[in-house]
Amino acid sequence: MANINVNYNKLPGSYLFSEIARRVAAYSQANPEKSIIRLGIGDVTRPLPAAVTAAMHKAVDEMATASGFHGYGPEQGYDFLRNAIAQADYKARGVEISPDEIFVSDGAKSDCGNIGDIFGVDNVVAVCDPVYPVYVDTNAMAGRAGDFDEAAGRWSNLVYMPCVAENGFSPVIPQRKVDMIYLCFPNNPTGAVATKEQLKAWVDYANANDAVILFDSAYEAFITDPDIPHSIFEIEGARTCAIEFRSFSKTAGFTGTRCAYTVIPKELIRGGTSLNAMWNRRQCTKFNGVPYVVQRGAEAVYSPEGQLQVKETIQYYLHNARIIRDGLASAGLTVSGGENSPYIWCRTPDGMGSWDFFDKLLHEANVVTTPGAGFGPSGEGYIRLTAFGDADATRLAVERIKAIL
Amino acid sequence: MANINVNYNKLPGSYLFSEIARRVAAYSQANPEKSIIRLGIGDVTRPLPAAVTAAMHKAVDEMATASGFHGYGPEQGYDFLRNAIAQADYKARGVEISPDEIFVSDGAKSDCGNIGDIFGVDNVVAVCDPVYPVYVDTNAMAGRAGDFDEAAGRWSNLVYMPCVAENGFSPVIPQRKVDMIYLCFPNNPTGAVATKEQLKAWVDYANANDAVILFDSAYEAFITDPDIPHSIFEIEGARTCAIEFRSFSKTAGFTGTRCAYTVIPKELIRGGTSLNAMWNRRQCTKFNGVPYVVQRGAEAVYSPEGQLQVKETIQYYLHNARIIRDGLASAGLTVSGGENSPYIWCRTPDGMGSWDFFDKLLHEANVVTTPGAGFGPSGEGYIRLTAFGDADATRLAVERIKAIL
Repeated sequence: MANINVNYNKLPGSYLFSEIARRVAAYSQANPEKSIIRLGIGDVTRPLPAAVTAAMHKAVDEMATASGFHGYGPEQGYDFLRNAIAQADYKARGVEISPDEIFVSDGAKSDCGNIGDIFGVDNVVAVCDPVYPVYVDTNAMAGRAGDFDEAAGRWSNLVYMPCVAENGFSPVIPQRKVDMIYLCFPNNPTGAVATKEQLKAWVDYANANDAVILFDSAYEAFITDPDIPHSIFEIEGARTCAIEFRSFSKTAGFTGTRCAYTVIPKELIRGGTSLNAMWNRRQCTKFNGVPYVVQRGAEAVYSPEGQLQVKETIQYYLHNARIIRDGLASAGLTVSGGENSPYIWCRTPDGMGSWDFFDKLLHEANVVTTPGAGFGPSGEGYIRLTAFGDADATRLAVERIKAIL
Repeated sequence: MANINVNYNKLPGSYLFSEIARRVAAYSQANPEKSIIRLGIGDVTRPLPAAVTAAMHKAVDEMATASGFHGYGPEQGYDFLRNAIAQADYKARGVEISPDEIFVSDGAKSDCGNIGDIFGVDNVVAVCDPVYPVYVDTNAMAGRAGDFDEAAGRWSNLVYMPCVAENGFSPVIPQRKVDMIYLCFPNNPTGAVATKEQLKAWVDYANANDAVILFDSAYEAFITDPDIPHSIFEIEGARTCAIEFRSFSKTAGFTGTRCAYTVIPKELIRGGTSLNAMWNRRQCTKFNGVPYVVQRGAEAVYSPEGQLQVKETIQYYLHNARIIRDGLASAGLTVSGGENSPYIWCRTPDGMGSWDFFDKLLHEANVVTTPGAGFGPSGEGYIRLTAFGDADATRLAVERIKAIL
């Protein structure tokens, strides 16, 4: 008899966004005349940059001819893209990453999830709380998380690092020794960033303990402060202890176009084995590369026009973030994030619960947010707002929230 | 200390195609005046159908506008594509598959590899010999294969089902009870097909033993014989025991464009759990869907023009297959496959070894093939040729082979 992976049975339902959708639909049905503004979802709304669509059109034309046709590409990505990434995202910032340390993929979510394939199941995993659920759920599926405690909202074998106002939403190195450490800066959902000194402490810990840092920098394009590092590899010593995940999703509007990459330095060795070589084997065996047309689009992000267009869109979203941040603060709410980040993390007023404040904003201001409790126990008492909406709608939403508080 | 997945250390090197490349490069360097024809690789060469590139251009144009932009799509694929697949690939052949049993993905290789996520590690796995290496390697990575015996070329815990001339390259149900059974028809590498009666025996076995059949029908578009089933779901009882993998790669030239799908019926339950629900959870957690532009391209495969164009290309390749098959047979070689399949499986003359015959064809006829031994011990004494090349080059290659035998 075929047995299933019983770890799946331990997963609690994935209720956050479906519960939001259910409440919004119910309200909308009861109040069809109300216009609802969504500041809840972390999806972009601006079109692809013109440089990107021009490159994609050109690539589609190539694929229509026998001489320009591209069949199977390298599983790791085409050299033209790996070289462009190594140059623009690393060398230009003084970081040496060689193209064969870069693995182009269809998404940071895929890579964050699949990276567990190359690790043993007995590693102790540390995650922030609140946290992007993919880190937790994929480790639960692999059997690293133990059992889920419904009442506490936590897994028995995971080490949670609370990120709360008291520590500036910056995780503290755990007492218990940990092996795999997930960090995300600029952070989803809190919008917090990490300084070089903060990251150096993690790198030193990881090197001292042979741990591995899984560093998600999917939102690095939103950093404007020159002192904030964009990459874990800006930190000395990271090449022997870190893996970095990057994405074109939020940088260049690729959420529906799918391109990302993972960086694994050749000096990252555990148990005598190169993790770069392991991931290469994993990708060659279970992945067949990103569409040629998409890789040509991603390459165009690095062209002079592409860079200008991308920066313009990022500015657009950062302007939204400032509108939200300043507006909520002026209404007396305690907000963080929204600087160097598309996410605004807002404390609920008067100790109100996340879901209660969510309902209040939905019913009274007709604005959809995300309850912080959905990202983990330490998210209770917060909501997340995102800067990815239309500028006019965002301004209107903030006015409505201010009006009801 | 972070521990690695030690199963990776058990994997033998993946030498087949790199060793072929090495030998071809060495010969080519020593004989720069020789023109080499490649009939070894399983990659397509004809351009994308015009209906597909037109649809992709249109979708790229949409992505360039705020109103037509598509961000995150459903992880399972857009309804427009799932509906088209359910209708054209199943209902039109009398098979009821509902759209929510279809999971659109970036490749059959990804799905064949990742499907292991939802199964326990203690299942006994049966594979054909010779075999597409992905089934074996991904199970080895997951710890289901045991240890590799270099001398025998086999893993200790896998059950191998020899597919040889004596059984018409059709696997026999193993004596030992097995839980997960990988079948691929039309077969890579042998080009063999399976009749309804043959598949019925597997379905009956799987249902009687609560096993699961993992059915790879990536080459079904090459079937011309009306009596040969295209899908395992044409067999009564398959809905309670089978998962099917399909791809646009060989059907519509998508090897560099990346779109495929996996079908998991809702009646497929093991350990009280729906495998459809498990795979849905897996995909929602570790995958973010196929690019919108690519899904629109795949949808166009089902348009009237797309269907005509795809059929024309398939005919082109099948014509190549006939040239190879008839040519080698007329030279006195024993050949199979190449009918209802793009692969021709050719016995080496006089009991010659796979690699020896490969070298002879490379050196004397300047034709690259694939040694059958690379697909498993029972592939020794065979070579694989593929029909995916240029028609003129294929004809010339066959003439050259005939001339030296």
